[in-house]
Amino acid sequence: MASEFDLIARYFDRPAPNAVLGVGDDAALIRPAPGMELAVSADMLVAGRHFFPDADPERLGHKSLAVNLSDLAAMAATPRWALLSLALPEADEAWLAGFSRGFFALADRYGVDLVGGDTTRGPLNISVTILGEVPAGGALRRDGAKAGDDIWVSGEIGAAALGLRHLFGELELTGSEAAACLARLHAPEPRVTLGLALAGVAHAAIDISDGLLADLGHILERSQLGAEIELARLPAAAAVAARLPDPRAMACLLAGGDDYELCFTAAQGQQEAVLAAGQSAGVPLSRIGRISAAPGLRVRRPDGEQLDMKVTGFDHFAN
Amino acid sequence: MASEFDLIARYFDRPAPNAVLGVGDDAALIRPAPGMELAVSADMLVAGRHFFPDADPERLGHKSLAVNLSDLAAMAATPRWALLSLALPEADEAWLAGFSRGFFALADRYGVDLVGGDTTRGPLNISVTILGEVPAGGALRRDGAKAGDDIWVSGEIGAAALGLRHLFGELELTGSEAAACLARLHAPEPRVTLGLALAGVAHAAIDISDGLLADLGHILERSQLGAEIELARLPAAAAVAARLPDPRAMACLLAGGDDYELCFTAAQGQQEAVLAAGQSAGVPLSRIGRISAAPGLRVRRPDGEQLDMKVTGFDHFAN
Repeated sequence: MASEFDLIARYFDRPAPNAVLGVGDDAALIRPAPGMELAVSADMLVAGRHFFPDADPERLGHKSLAVNLSDLAAMAATPRWALLSLALPEADEAWLAGFSRGFFALADRYGVDLVGGDTTRGPLNISVTILGEVPAGGALRRDGAKAGDDIWVSGEIGAAALGLRHLFGELELTGSEAAACLARLHAPEPRVTLGLALAGVAHAAIDISDGLLADLGHILERSQLGAEIELARLPAAAAVAARLPDPRAMACLLAGGDDYELCFTAAQGQQEAVLAAGQSAGVPLSRIGRISAAPGLRVRRPDGEQLDMKVTGFDHFAN
Repeated sequence: MASEFDLIARYFDRPAPNAVLGVGDDAALIRPAPGMELAVSADMLVAGRHFFPDADPERLGHKSLAVNLSDLAAMAATPRWALLSLALPEADEAWLAGFSRGFFALADRYGVDLVGGDTTRGPLNISVTILGEVPAGGALRRDGAKAGDDIWVSGEIGAAALGLRHLFGELELTGSEAAACLARLHAPEPRVTLGLALAGVAHAAIDISDGLLADLGHILERSQLGAEIELARLPAAAAVAARLPDPRAMACLLAGGDDYELCFTAAQGQQEAVLAAGQSAGVPLSRIGRISAAPGLRVRRPDGEQLDMKVTGFDHFAN
């Protein structure tokens, strides 16, 4: 029985040149290239929690795929196929047109086929599964860091979180600052090309979705190591840097999520190769500290003293 | 920052022996066997639409995986990996314990690893992606039916829809009828073993989730063929058969979804092979009609006359 939701599903029924069989059967069929492993990840975005219910649908379409592409970037995997399950309060054609435009614009940029999913009525929920290919054994995992590794961060951090605080009225940004920070919040750019360029160069990687301290903490936990990073070396976004040492700006820098930059580690001898990877991907890279055999995550202030995590409220990051 | 939802996610963090890398990194890593294609499908279940908000969590855990396994069964694919994204209004440990018990009991039965997903706060939403393996070119697709094929249905149909009407108070079932019908509705049994046994035997297959006429209609549409089925040959569940020709029972039989039986076609010369596949899987099979070159879906009544789809309200199935 063709319902309005079947019709919506057809909105997303597009050719899938990378697939053996795309949308329209009980399952899609895909054929990974010989010698490749598949990297698979899923993210769920919920209205009111991950975005405002009245968020621009085109940017939402972009973001819902971007956060998944970012996960594959952090594995050095080439994104290939996606599945999209959507719960919608109503079949709003204008919303769907915008959402699919944003989704497919990003998908097309990276050659990702939408091969399946589901559409149903319900409170707005966007659930995406992404599949990518990576040469067997070549993925950048969280558990690959080694003592003595340099720690690197791509691009700039803190902008998305600062933009969110601006929206909540916790601080005020200038017009141009707000534009820059909200662009990062609503339309993050997944570092797919950089992730691929880091294969064979980096030891471990993660995308910064929960904040630098938390995400670097995941690498340390999985690699059973510690780290020291230098506050002055962190690539703070301009609007964040302009407000330091305001504790709110500090929080955005150290614990602000949603920037979707990459944090990765590489041997000290690989600095030139790392910088070359950044250059080939067109993304600036900052060397922010070093992995240590001693456990714990320490942040050194510009005066050489260690940042007191308890005083700054970041003590739950110091394991 | 470890939230209650991180803790919940760990509830689902179990070993994944089929995966190169399971839960806990930016993405899981899986390695399909050489020569295999991957069958990939996703389903989203929403409270209030696909189940009652107070549904038993253990049966819900079972069902949310079962409907996905059923999609792979209809492709003759071996289920291997699943991703589960959950939006929950609150971190209710009892609910999670029940849900994960039901989910993993079924997953373990078929050797399926949970390799990823997401957990977040939001209106109850269960989004599952399933991945399975099928020998290249060996999948049972909807577009594979041939004129002259027999049409088969596994098990019994109509029970789940009858159980739902009972819950809505539209008709009354006896205690034992209700138990049988509600078991089908709440805890469907995916025909995974049967689907695998039909590989190389059947031409086309689909799982009956929208109702026999609709789902057979999908095969006809994709195969660009028609069909005639015989009402008397349909394997009506006992409680449905006892109420025929009540139009409500008829609707359950012809258009009732949620039974998750398989409907498939096979060459007439393959009847013995089909029955052997059913026997090996322990599932009774019924031959219900025949694929025709002439388009349209016709239902023949026991008196030899054609069921008038307009009178019965099924005219939207007669394409």
